[in-house]
Amino acid sequence: MKRIISVLVEKDAGGLVRIISLFTRRRFEIESITAAACERKGYERLTITVLNQDDGGDSAGQLTKQLRKLLNVVNVKDITYLPIVHRELLLIKIQANLAEREEILNLSKIFRFKINEVTNSTLILEVTADPGKIVALQKMLEKYTILQLSRTGQIALVRESEVCTSSLREYPGFDSSLDLKRK
Amino acid sequence: MKRIISVLVEKDAGGLVRIISLFTRRRFEIESITAAACERKGYERLTITVLNQDDGGDSAGQLTKQLRKLLNVVNVKDITYLPIVHRELLLIKIQANLAEREEILNLSKIFRFKINEVTNSTLILEVTADPGKIVALQKMLEKYTILQLSRTGQIALVRESEVCTSSLREYPGFDSSLDLKRK
Repeated sequence: MKRIISVLVEKDAGGLVRIISLFTRRRFEIESITAAACERKGYERLTITVLNQDDGGDSAGQLTKQLRKLLNVVNVKDITYLPIVHRELLLIKIQANLAEREEILNLSKIFRFKINEVTNSTLILEVTADPGKIVALQKMLEKYTILQLSRTGQIALVRESEVCTSSLREYPGFDSSLDLKRK
Repeated sequence: MKRIISVLVEKDAGGLVRIISLFTRRRFEIESITAAACERKGYERLTITVLNQDDGGDSAGQLTKQLRKLLNVVNVKDITYLPIVHRELLLIKIQANLAEREEILNLSKIFRFKINEVTNSTLILEVTADPGKIVALQKMLEKYTILQLSRTGQIALVRESEVCTSSLREYPGFDSSLDLKRK
């Protein structure tokens, strides 16, 4: 099962090691991690997506409790089931001849990614999207040769409106074409 | 001095802790770190931006050498001075009344960010940009109340064209307005 955990921490030299060690000790597999400055000076926000084997118990709940006890950790939130805006950034270097370049240019209109660099045989794409769109794009790009790929891992903020757009997709009156356009 | 270091590593439980511990021991301050899947299955790419005190020696060079010796580390590259595409993603929750919302909507046309959520008193912005643009945007947003901010930290890919656009800005024949439009 995948979990998204957001941690607000006061910056200090060993803080990051303490937090990541705890995940490792508790046998959570870290799928991605981002740590960077946030709205409070001297603090940083970590967004960690983890996989854990569903053992029937509340191991994720225990993990967040233990994280809260760590030195300099100010706030821990398991935001997996909250209505969130979550996005990830990818840079992808693709080998592409003239015909393939044309195809990828057409894809860029559908998936709304940017092309940052073109040479005679390569392209660099910049994609910002939610996890669903990234999976769809990866499937479309499978037929090309991906030379290099760098991703940031997910970041997320809780929606103030408390409306979860992904659950809305199952709502009968919801016009999904409108949702696609907005993105 | 700021450095950007890209590390390709075979995924294992303790790998992340080993790498970050090394930075801490060598007294490099980690400004941001991202770790996520990459183009090779079972491997992950870390992008780490660090600050180190300029001691006149080659401490960054020594660090990359030591990183290469760590278990499961496949490749380490200090890409600070290479021609790179580097980008970062930010989600920003801002308190905004009707008049402020209008102002921010106008800013979104200039800075090309997206507005992901609107309520009566808040907005969530999604910004993908290079470090220079992020600094400029942060200055513009200083006058508003920032409720929450989550950033991914930088990721980067080396340009195949080996052309460094930031150095081009100082080139007499370079039309910077064209460069701005492209972004």
